[in-house]
Amino acid sequence: MSTEVILEPIKDQMHEIEERLYSDLSPADKRLSDLVFHISKIKGKRFRPALLLLSGKCSGGLVPQHIDLAIVVELIHTATLVHDDIIDEAEVRRHVETMNSKWGREISILFGDYLFSRAYTILSALDSQIATLIMSQTINILCEGEIVQFLRCYDTEVTESDYLSIIERKTASLCAASCKLGAISSGANKKLSEALTNYGLKIGMAFQIIDDCLDVMGKEEEMGKPLNSDIQSGKLTLPFIRLVNKLPTDRKESTLELIFQNNSKDSKAAIADLLVEHEAVDYAHETARQLVKKAQEEISFIPDSVYKTALLELGDYVVRRER
Amino acid sequence: MSTEVILEPIKDQMHEIEERLYSDLSPADKRLSDLVFHISKIKGKRFRPALLLLSGKCSGGLVPQHIDLAIVVELIHTATLVHDDIIDEAEVRRHVETMNSKWGREISILFGDYLFSRAYTILSALDSQIATLIMSQTINILCEGEIVQFLRCYDTEVTESDYLSIIERKTASLCAASCKLGAISSGANKKLSEALTNYGLKIGMAFQIIDDCLDVMGKEEEMGKPLNSDIQSGKLTLPFIRLVNKLPTDRKESTLELIFQNNSKDSKAAIADLLVEHEAVDYAHETARQLVKKAQEEISFIPDSVYKTALLELGDYVVRRER
Repeated sequence: MSTEVILEPIKDQMHEIEERLYSDLSPADKRLSDLVFHISKIKGKRFRPALLLLSGKCSGGLVPQHIDLAIVVELIHTATLVHDDIIDEAEVRRHVETMNSKWGREISILFGDYLFSRAYTILSALDSQIATLIMSQTINILCEGEIVQFLRCYDTEVTESDYLSIIERKTASLCAASCKLGAISSGANKKLSEALTNYGLKIGMAFQIIDDCLDVMGKEEEMGKPLNSDIQSGKLTLPFIRLVNKLPTDRKESTLELIFQNNSKDSKAAIADLLVEHEAVDYAHETARQLVKKAQEEISFIPDSVYKTALLELGDYVVRRER
Repeated sequence: MSTEVILEPIKDQMHEIEERLYSDLSPADKRLSDLVFHISKIKGKRFRPALLLLSGKCSGGLVPQHIDLAIVVELIHTATLVHDDIIDEAEVRRHVETMNSKWGREISILFGDYLFSRAYTILSALDSQIATLIMSQTINILCEGEIVQFLRCYDTEVTESDYLSIIERKTASLCAASCKLGAISSGANKKLSEALTNYGLKIGMAFQIIDDCLDVMGKEEEMGKPLNSDIQSGKLTLPFIRLVNKLPTDRKESTLELIFQNNSKDSKAAIADLLVEHEAVDYAHETARQLVKKAQEEISFIPDSVYKTALLELGDYVVRRER
């Protein structure tokens, strides 16, 4: 099932977000318009806005603030992607040139900052202290996660638990915040708000694990970007951590060397073989599936509705997706 | 007169800000502590916190919110410096290795984002919609100014008016916002708040013009960083714009070529001679002096106090300073 089908019950609101996302940016200086136009071409899945809207729908229905907050979380997410692409020296994202590839690293740093500040401008106009506080703390946690991930590049001591803690911060925190903002904007009670937040956290972690699997085993034409980017920048993701754990001690070091120097076609194939042999990607997939199952259990007590069904189906989509 | 003497009337509050500035950051992950410790060594002039506190004092006195806001504006300023240093590939700032030089570009991008989000976390805890809105809009304007400046690097068509518009956005906007936040937090009326905001805007512009002059004519050991960084990155600052304006048409092109390729000691000396011959730095200094005069006139109606005197003296300091 595609996300279009899953998100059918909120398609009008998703459409409104799409319309407003970049038209709202309308920079005062027209020299910036080209930058805004370029970023608008890198069309994402709008996963976080969908989580926010569905959480709102499951908590009693939407108010105009939901649309603004959905735009805020997507702008924040986009700002982090712009900065991530500089750090990873990524050239293509979703079949489109990255900001840094098209406009250079320098402008992209500033443009990421610009997107952050635009998000905060929309947020502060809402006059919701709780929303501003949740977003600030979330971005804080997100930055910490990103920094720790970077500080531990090429660190062969990174454990599965370290990895889970990093992805919880760098990815799942914003998914959890999206659900929380959706819920509290509809006046959800504590139980419902916490359940949706936990759902967002777990599904966010599953989302990142699958992203990391796709970076190893995905299809380049589906992904719209070169593969193996994580390992080439020294990030040990779950499949690799699993692989190293499964290897006999005397083979760990040589395998890690091979992993980190996988520039040739041969070494890539050798690593892929090892990952298959040790069922390392299967293990990561299973971890993601378990997280999605737990996420779905978190919201099982919510009365049935097309919106609850969409949240449950989003979970299945997250582990099934191929891009 | 040193800033220590000028700021004597608010020395206790300045001390409190110094104490809390980085201890408040206290990252949840201890791996970040080293980054926080490093940034704490690059001790700035704390010009923006001083403007905020003095504006508050001139508007009826300080409340605890002033201290928090002063920390917020300094953190925002520091975040922009961290990102600026990456863009300029600067290695030293105030005699201390820059973040990018010590920790690398990648971490510095994320650490700048982290400082922004910490500032917003402090801000959102204050529950002042107006303060959050002012800060968001200011950072927005600041980013626009920085982006436009960068887009116009090596652009020989940049006029004096373009330059003034850029520095108003990238530097003066945060100084103006500091004064405004100080004034409104003390319940200043519209006339007083606007006067202090205008004072901040003009003194901020003067501050940047002098900064740009010092980059050409300052002493490296006083500045604590290499000189000529602006022109080497293609930024035409006021002294150069003035110089080009004063040259006969047939010498403009060759001089601009010389300016942008000033890597050798000889070319640096030749440019310095040209700047002196055409009194281009004097002109920039005079522009800054006029702005400070106007800034001081803006607040002339405020009743005399040690705090008003400090604001007036800060103006004189801005054009007189050698670092």
